[in-house]
Amino acid sequence: MADYELYYWPTIPGRGEFVRLALEDAGADYVDVARQPEAQGGGVKAMMKLMRDTECPVAPFAPPFLRAGSLLVAQTANILQFLGPRLGLVPEDEASRLSAHQLQLTIADFVSEAHDVHHPIGVSLYYEDQRAESLRRAPLFITERMPKFLGYFERTLERNEGGGRSHLVGAAVSYVDLSMFQLVSGLQYAFPRAMARLEEKIPLLVELQGRVAARPRLAAYLASPRRLAFNQHGIFRHYPELDTVEDD
Amino acid sequence: MADYELYYWPTIPGRGEFVRLALEDAGADYVDVARQPEAQGGGVKAMMKLMRDTECPVAPFAPPFLRAGSLLVAQTANILQFLGPRLGLVPEDEASRLSAHQLQLTIADFVSEAHDVHHPIGVSLYYEDQRAESLRRAPLFITERMPKFLGYFERTLERNEGGGRSHLVGAAVSYVDLSMFQLVSGLQYAFPRAMARLEEKIPLLVELQGRVAARPRLAAYLASPRRLAFNQHGIFRHYPELDTVEDD
Repeated sequence: MADYELYYWPTIPGRGEFVRLALEDAGADYVDVARQPEAQGGGVKAMMKLMRDTECPVAPFAPPFLRAGSLLVAQTANILQFLGPRLGLVPEDEASRLSAHQLQLTIADFVSEAHDVHHPIGVSLYYEDQRAESLRRAPLFITERMPKFLGYFERTLERNEGGGRSHLVGAAVSYVDLSMFQLVSGLQYAFPRAMARLEEKIPLLVELQGRVAARPRLAAYLASPRRLAFNQHGIFRHYPELDTVEDD
Repeated sequence: MADYELYYWPTIPGRGEFVRLALEDAGADYVDVARQPEAQGGGVKAMMKLMRDTECPVAPFAPPFLRAGSLLVAQTANILQFLGPRLGLVPEDEASRLSAHQLQLTIADFVSEAHDVHHPIGVSLYYEDQRAESLRRAPLFITERMPKFLGYFERTLERNEGGGRSHLVGAAVSYVDLSMFQLVSGLQYAFPRAMARLEEKIPLLVELQGRVAARPRLAAYLASPRRLAFNQHGIFRHYPELDTVEDD
């Protein structure tokens, strides 16, 4: 049995990808269960069955969740906080670990806001059925929320002189840096025009993104079929009509 | 100097209240800084100044945040996870602590969705300027999201036979139970008709709410001026036109 079993929807990067990047960067022994064949105990049905019928006292509310021995851990940031020390992807001192988790939770908030750009009314409706509301929400997200969140993360890098302004927490790469790579990449996929306009204001984040992508294990992973491409079913979706810039 | 300094907007319960309930229930030595007079170092300006100019490596993105000695901890669930062991409000074993935090993060997700019922387009706009979109979002929140989240929490109580089905995690009260009191109370304030309809399906949660409110220190706190009432500027707001039930 593998050290870790990751459970997440098999066809989108979504929130599972933040966990996957940590496991891949560390070269961890893990199985991506819902992407395995049903005959081998994989698939979405097996995932949903475990979520409902787990013997653990508290069941997950939703994927992603991680099985590690007798533990079943859900909520993306909770999983990463659990994995960080085990994978060597977070500093050892309490202050840094609290800061890392704090930043990860802020990333999670931003990810939810990015998702809701194309789903402002409800997750049970198609985008096409809430397109009018999305067209109203998107410009506010682009002109207010993206600069606010990304500006905060850029300043966090700027302040980290001890870490060479190249890590969000501490002096080495942490799971937060890996998640930031995914966040910036997702925004570039969903809002290429808006991000092209914004990138000159977040040079340290763009550098961080490139450095993470070049890490040997991650570079190999990103080039492999294990890496799922962004697509129109995930959190980050590219609808050109939502990707507006001021001159439009 | 007090053991803890809580920083949060002084006129709404909001996310700060989840932290305040834990501090109050434990009888902790804390100061609610932004609610103190400016002449005594209080007020919103002092809060914003610390948030911008902190000496800590990572600044908060937003209130609430907590100062404990040299640590500055932000993000509600992160603060509660930090306080839990110190205040005796979480079990000692790793599995329970992971579960408690997982539940707290699920509460946080639900709280954000509840907020966005009256702010589906953007936080920079007044409710009145996104009322049409709110009127579309509210029925989906009431008929789909409330039963889904509250049903999940009710099942979590049902499964906890070892805890007498009266605690969300373990066999004693935890910060998650206190937060659940606040969540159920907030929903009752914002959606009284919808909640009246739903409460028969969540008897254990309603019992939990009553038991938490009757805890001696909390009962005294709830009757004190320190407890801020729900109001139309917070997360949970009562707009009658959003509180629809099926017969409407």
